[in-house]
Order: sequence, then structure tokens, then C-alpha cells
Amino acid sequence: MAIDYQSLAVRGVQALSPYQPGKPIEELARELGLNPAEIIKLASNENPLGPSEKALSAARQALSELCLYPDGNGFNLKQALSKRLNVGMDQITLGNGSNDVLEVITRCFADADSEVVFSQYAFAVYPLVTQAIGARGVSVPAREWGHDLDAMAVAVTDRTRLVFVANPNNPTGTVHTADAIEAFLKKIPENVLVVLDEAYCEYLTGDQYPDGVELLARFPNLIVCRTFSKAWGLAALRVGYSISSPAIADILNRVRQPFNVDTVALSAATAVLDDEDYLQRSRDVNTAGLRQLQEAFDRMGLGYIPSAGNFVAVEVGEQAMGVYQALLAHGVIVRPITGYGMPRHLRVSVGLPEENERFIEALAQALTASGLSD
Amino acid sequence: MAIDYQSLAVRGVQALSPYQPGKPIEELARELGLNPAEIIKLASNENPLGPSEKALSAARQALSELCLYPDGNGFNLKQALSKRLNVGMDQITLGNGSNDVLEVITRCFADADSEVVFSQYAFAVYPLVTQAIGARGVSVPAREWGHDLDAMAVAVTDRTRLVFVANPNNPTGTVHTADAIEAFLKKIPENVLVVLDEAYCEYLTGDQYPDGVELLARFPNLIVCRTFSKAWGLAALRVGYSISSPAIADILNRVRQPFNVDTVALSAATAVLDDEDYLQRSRDVNTAGLRQLQEAFDRMGLGYIPSAGNFVAVEVGEQAMGVYQALLAHGVIVRPITGYGMPRHLRVSVGLPEENERFIEALAQALTASGLSD
Repeated sequence: MAIDYQSLAVRGVQALSPYQPGKPIEELARELGLNPAEIIKLASNENPLGPSEKALSAARQALSELCLYPDGNGFNLKQALSKRLNVGMDQITLGNGSNDVLEVITRCFADADSEVVFSQYAFAVYPLVTQAIGARGVSVPAREWGHDLDAMAVAVTDRTRLVFVANPNNPTGTVHTADAIEAFLKKIPENVLVVLDEAYCEYLTGDQYPDGVELLARFPNLIVCRTFSKAWGLAALRVGYSISSPAIADILNRVRQPFNVDTVALSAATAVLDDEDYLQRSRDVNTAGLRQLQEAFDRMGLGYIPSAGNFVAVEVGEQAMGVYQALLAHGVIVRPITGYGMPRHLRVSVGLPEENERFIEALAQALTASGLSD
Repeated sequence: MAIDYQSLAVRGVQALSPYQPGKPIEELARELGLNPAEIIKLASNENPLGPSEKALSAARQALSELCLYPDGNGFNLKQALSKRLNVGMDQITLGNGSNDVLEVITRCFADADSEVVFSQYAFAVYPLVTQAIGARGVSVPAREWGHDLDAMAVAVTDRTRLVFVANPNNPTGTVHTADAIEAFLKKIPENVLVVLDEAYCEYLTGDQYPDGVELLARFPNLIVCRTFSKAWGLAALRVGYSISSPAIADILNRVRQPFNVDTVALSAATAVLDDEDYLQRSRDVNTAGLRQLQEAFDRMGLGYIPSAGNFVAVEVGEQAMGVYQALLAHGVIVRPITGYGMPRHLRVSVGLPEENERFIEALAQALTASGLSD
């Protein structure tokens, strides 16, 4: 009798649906017979500027070492991060994107007997990594699309080992102030770890928002996660990191794969930290693009969730999947977020001004075609 | 009272010692104040040829897309592998190095109640990934430094979910014939998965050795793992893969991180598969270098384990750590394998002829200095 090999997988894995990434340009080009150069992708919250010249140059140089394993300790990158953030190198854990760090944290501190708390509409990776180890995910209903921090604190039980807080959150773009995050941290028992995911923090403007790293001294149960995939423009290379106490970093570094960040990635990330100008341009393009998109939605009478990230969730109504498909046919890739329980919204990443404009025009046409515009 | 955060880690992780990689050239240069260009590293079984021009050129081109996420499905690479190996694309799971694939397999199919069987002196990652999930690792005593396949089959119990077989094995270089592997597979119950790790298979010469991929049709419980880090010369970029039944691949693809292989890595690996000439030169340099090293050991009266890989474990005696240190002072990095329970051996990777020669001279001096040579 033939064995059902899927039934041999551990329980949590059997129930797992994989992460649904944004559709790659090449894939859409293959499917619709389009020219890849004519497609724009505003689906994965990528930096529209193109790479930093400093990062590019460092990456090019690193190619001469393709035959050699990466530096498993990531010495140069940790040193650069340590200087920039004013933390010890022993507080840093590098990951193959922050996805890797989030997964490693979960595997280190939670198991099948644990509960892991996160918000409704929060980043999809939190429930996925929780499910993969068979832990119980506790999804706390959101408040106005954002984390209900009070309710999340109340959801912590004796079995809770981890709480994920995304600030700003993807895909909603909601954000909490420093005061709110601090008040929340004070309510969480010291033996429950709080993962503050700041993947989009570089886009924040205004001083009312927290800098997770500054909170570490007062909250030893805090782990701050960041990434080079967004404002730093290195999504292709997969580099993320966490900052925590040295004791927690020591645990995480035992479990991460010894060469989890590759040589080109380490070099490019180290170099881009020197490119303040690139970071500033990333912010400026984003601020202008967010305004451009939100003003267009206002004109079109479309609701949206005001965003602190490099994307906006816009409400296009019941036919959101139809609008998504119509946009694809126009060569514009955005992100349906039905999987997040937001079937009436589409998430669009901020592009360059001309990309935003092309999206806005395609959206207007798609809505007209589906008879949904005002 | 301050919390001991390490005590909050799950049981398996608390007992974990991280993988000890070969010492990076930059690190030795920092420590001893040496010029990195004068150091040779024969410590990590890397390809001494330098990268394939085809891989390099593809990697360079891919740099223009640094801001975009990789193709999470690895379409082009899977398509190329599928053609080369004559398997379906749905049989392939890509990993951030084969380390990633080995870890994902373990997390998918074993948990804290499982046993995982591997050989004494086998690749260190097997016990590490087993320990990380709190499963029981069953290390079966080796026979003449190689896997005792009969004893491994006997070690399988009702709780065994996985058996790891490295062919050739690192760090011993031992290898089994096709007949031996087939006889072994016939003894393993169908509901126990066998992971045949063929990281070094491209170096095999002679037709008496198995091609794991050909065995898949007859043994549906088989998972074959391979890597681009050795003969293909792309260790810096972290690309490995497994080939299995589609059902098993589907499970593995649920758990691997959605963007676990980066854009530059995907492009370089796809391109290098077209570079048969590079692969042949890798093999030729290795065959000649193995002969050069083994002949020198014979002349020096040193025992060694005949190797089918791109490295040799040479027996330098009780002072192996002292010899290792003396080699470092000469700017030659090899690999102590005390952690493998082989305190009398050092593992040296096959280099270019002049690198092998420099190692041999440094070894002779180190042995004379420590009074250990004949």
C-alpha cells in the first residue's frame, strides 16, 4: 500500500499554507505574454529607487569571492550596525531577511505547548512561523485596522512565550506612538518576549514614534527586528537582523544557520549603511508618493488606511480580486490581501511618481470597467 | 529579580552548541596581523578554481535588481535543474545552501518525540538540526570511518522518522557503492525518510557509485540533497536543493522561507549549470590535488582516510590542535575535527597545486617543530 507522505509531516506543518508572495514580474510576463520591461510591480513594498550605488559597488566587488563561504559571524556588518545603533556586536543576530530572524526567534522560544500573540491584520509571517512549530497562535482583534495593544496585553497568559508587534504594521500601515508602545511593554510580564518588528521604521517621520533600540535598556524582554529590504533597498539579497540583550542573541545565534547571510548580501548591507543620502532619498520619494496616492484615492472617493509605511491599503470594494486581475492585464501588479482577512482592500506599494500615476490611471480604468467607481 | 533569558529557550536549543565553521581568512588576518592575500584557506571544502565565468556574469547582471524580492519559486533555476536531472520541477525544493534543506526536512518530519539516525563522524549539521528541535539523535558507530549501513538499518525503531546518509561523507571522505546504498534502502521501512546527502557527488569518479536521483523512482521515501557550494563553486551564495517525490517537496516548500534563496544566487546557480567545462575542471583539479596530498602524506609517513570528496582527513597525532595552530602561524588554515570526535586528524581541503604544496611544506615544518614527524 502506498504511503501518504504528507501524513508523515509533523502536525503543525500539515496544516500550513505557505506564504503568498507578490507576483514576480517575470511570472506575469510569462503568463500574459507581456514585455517584462513594461510591467510595474507595486506588490511587495520594495524600494522604487533602484539600488544604492555604494551597495552596488560593494556587491560587485564581493563577486570575486563566490567560491568561498561567507563570514558566518558577519563581522563587518555587525561592526557597522553596532556603531550606527550604539549597541554591542553581541546584541545582534543576522538573518536571511528579517523573516529568518522572526522564524529563528519563534523556534528558540516557543514550542507546541506555547501560545504566541499577534494582532489581526498583522504581518502574515507571525502566524506562519507559529503554525510551523505547532504552537497556538492567538490573533487579537484589531482596532481601526491597527494593533489593539490593550487587548493584546490582556491576551497574554501563562502559556504565552512571544508577542509580535509590528510598528508600522504591514499590510495596514498603522503605527503606534512611543508612549503607547512603552505603556504596552510595561504591562507584559518580564518572562514573555516581545518582538517589535520595525521593518518599516526608516519611513517614519515625526518624533512621536518609538526607536525600539532605545527601549532595550529598560525592557530586557524586548527583541527589535529590522531589515535591509525596504528603505535600504536590498530586498533581493535577504538581510535582516535583530537587536536584543546579549543573552537572547546568544540563543538566536545558536539556531540560525551558520551561513544564513551570503557574502554579497553582507558586503552590500555593510556598504549601504554609509549611504545616508540614499536613505534620505528613499524617505523623500516615499513621503511624496504616499501623498500622491492618498490624494488620488481622495479624488476618486476611495477609502484607504492612512499609512506610515511604503504602501497603502486602499478599499476598492467587493470586487477587489476582479480589480486586481484588471490591473494585471494593464501590466500593474499590486497585492490582494484577502489572505489577511481584508477582501475589500488592495495593498499598493509606493513607487516612483510615474509608476504611481500609471497605477492610478489603471485603477480608474479597472474600476470603471467593473462598474464600481463613483 | 533578573530573568535568566537563556532558561526560557526551548529544551533542545538550550543544549545546543553552534556549528563551528572554518576560520575565515579575514579573521585570521585580523588576529595575526597578516596580509589576507598571503593566507590560504583549505578549511571549508571550497572550490579552489575561483568562480565560473558564466556564473560570475549572471551574478553581475542580477545586481541591477537588488531592490526587488527574489523569485520565491525559483522558476528559472528549478527549470534548469529539472532539465538536467530529468525530474519534475515539483520534485525540487531550493534551500539557502543544502544546510537549509537539511534543516527544513528535519523540522517537517521530526519533532521532540522522534529519533533521527545518522553515523558517527557524519556531517555535523545532522546532529545540530536534530538537537534544535529536541529530537533524539541516534549516532551509529562508524566502520573504518565510514557509515556502517547495516548497523544504521538495525538502529531504526518505531520512533525513527529520518535517517541521514552522507555519500560521500564529510569530514571522512568515505563513500558507499550503488549496491551498498540500494541494499540499505531496501531494509528501511517505507514510512521512514532517508536523506541521501550528495553534497560531494560531483567529485565521484567511476560508475560504481549511486546517483540518488535514479533511485527516487524505486524508493519514494528517499530525499536527495545537493549543493552548489562545492564542485559548482558558489559557496558564497548559498544554494542547495533537494529532489524528492512531489508530495514530500510540497511539504518542504511549505516550511522553507518564501525568499530563502536570493536573486544573485538564483541567477548564478542557473547559469553555472550551463558551464560543463567548469565542472570538468573542478573535477580534474580535485583528482590531481587529492593525489598530490595523499602522495605527500605517504612520503611523510602520515596516515589518512582515502577520500572521495574534495578534502582529506590526515592523521597528525595527539598534537593535532598544536599542528593546526602552527599552520595558522604559517598563514595556512585547515580544519580541526575534534568536534567530530577525531582529535588526531586535521581535515585539509584540496587546493590548487601550489596551495597544496604550500600546505605540505607548512605541515612538514609544523610537525618538525612539534617533534612529531618521523
